[in-house]
Amino acid sequence: MPRYKLLIEYDGRPFSGWQRQDNAPSVMGLIEDCIFKFARERAAVFGAGRTDSGVHATGQVAHLDLERDWHSQKLVEALNHFLKETGVAILGAWKITDEFDSRFTAIRRYYRYRICNRRAPLTFERGRAWQYSYPIDIDLMQQGCELLIGHHDFTTFRATACQAKNPWRTMQYLKVIREGEWVYLDAMSRSFLHNQIRSFVGSLVEVGSARKPVEWITEILEARDRRACGPVAPPDGLYLTQVDYPEDLDYIIPEEPWVGYQKK
Amino acid sequence: MPRYKLLIEYDGRPFSGWQRQDNAPSVMGLIEDCIFKFARERAAVFGAGRTDSGVHATGQVAHLDLERDWHSQKLVEALNHFLKETGVAILGAWKITDEFDSRFTAIRRYYRYRICNRRAPLTFERGRAWQYSYPIDIDLMQQGCELLIGHHDFTTFRATACQAKNPWRTMQYLKVIREGEWVYLDAMSRSFLHNQIRSFVGSLVEVGSARKPVEWITEILEARDRRACGPVAPPDGLYLTQVDYPEDLDYIIPEEPWVGYQKK
Repeated sequence: MPRYKLLIEYDGRPFSGWQRQDNAPSVMGLIEDCIFKFARERAAVFGAGRTDSGVHATGQVAHLDLERDWHSQKLVEALNHFLKETGVAILGAWKITDEFDSRFTAIRRYYRYRICNRRAPLTFERGRAWQYSYPIDIDLMQQGCELLIGHHDFTTFRATACQAKNPWRTMQYLKVIREGEWVYLDAMSRSFLHNQIRSFVGSLVEVGSARKPVEWITEILEARDRRACGPVAPPDGLYLTQVDYPEDLDYIIPEEPWVGYQKK
Repeated sequence: MPRYKLLIEYDGRPFSGWQRQDNAPSVMGLIEDCIFKFARERAAVFGAGRTDSGVHATGQVAHLDLERDWHSQKLVEALNHFLKETGVAILGAWKITDEFDSRFTAIRRYYRYRICNRRAPLTFERGRAWQYSYPIDIDLMQQGCELLIGHHDFTTFRATACQAKNPWRTMQYLKVIREGEWVYLDAMSRSFLHNQIRSFVGSLVEVGSARKPVEWITEILEARDRRACGPVAPPDGLYLTQVDYPEDLDYIIPEEPWVGYQKK
């Protein structure tokens, strides 16, 4: 039973999130439906990150098992054929060993949060960024980030609905950069709690806009109390950008070059 | 009667173009309606470039005359209030002398055409770029551009509906660049013919994809015949990015600093 790894990009706006749900459009459900359309198999597609409603991905990773053996490039072409105009695209596929599990073998997850820091309303980027009208000092924001990097109990920064058993995480990278009117927060960790980055961003913008002092971040972190958290930033600006797997995990199965499509 | 210059950004997808039309949504018409909503005046908004249906702008310039004298920043804030969620935003406004006419005083117009050169369907960029699945050699495309730069009769590259009296234009700048899967064509001229850039792009991609030799560009240019043109690229990828006015035209009227909004 061949296993495949998929690299997936999606515009989260039309979806109620990654995870399949009854009566609501999900990215996972859509891809599963497309697999059925061409392969006539009901396969589950397991994602590395269960992104929330309205959250986007440029580098989601998933795995799935199929009964029939397809060339991985055929899988890409067939899925993309059915995914056209849905806002979801398969950027790549690889035939893999079943040592690989998109979620449990992942060692690093990367997210970017995009803030459009200007007074004018969003045009192209509606639903794809958080528009914030007042000045943001990214040096203050970065000072706040430094207080969150490392191993902490992040109870303050996780949704009350978060199902993780343990509120401790190790924030390995948290950096704010500005490019013109854009402010980006880049975050990397082995794993994240539910709503953790949106909770970080909401509180860090309180600091960057000087409504709260930098030390307030330590205060609310140490409170270990969800009620101490600042406002939670909207899902619009959040992107799952990359998932890493151990470099010594030799999971890709070589295939013959694919010659299934020809130049026009 | 004070005159204002506006700098405007818009997502062209929902509009049938810049120019006001009966029974079809236009950017010009929408802005005029928003002016009426806050100023109760019916003012015409004259744009520097009459972009087609589905064409975007990051730097459209317009001018308008109002009876009542508003601070230019008040104009921006009020218009943006009514423009929220429409895909149109006012990036700036200036009080100006009536020597300035957005269209007739303009000396340079800049456009960018965006091609997403990959096999996977577009996600975030649906309607905002031309997805082209087959390999493009940008060096070949650039060789084609060199044949179009300068003063030529561009009859081949203008829509049959083009209303310009004269098919001669001077193409001052035409450059193709690649950034990963993105290919951009940047064009600058005093003015352009109707569908000129989309006609350029369609023919240049024929050359870049090696379906036509570079010299074919000269052949069709010299034909001075619309029927000789390659396929016209879709409006999705076209952006009006900048309009320049003479540097010695001292048209901006200084205003008092505006204190109409306060930091939260």
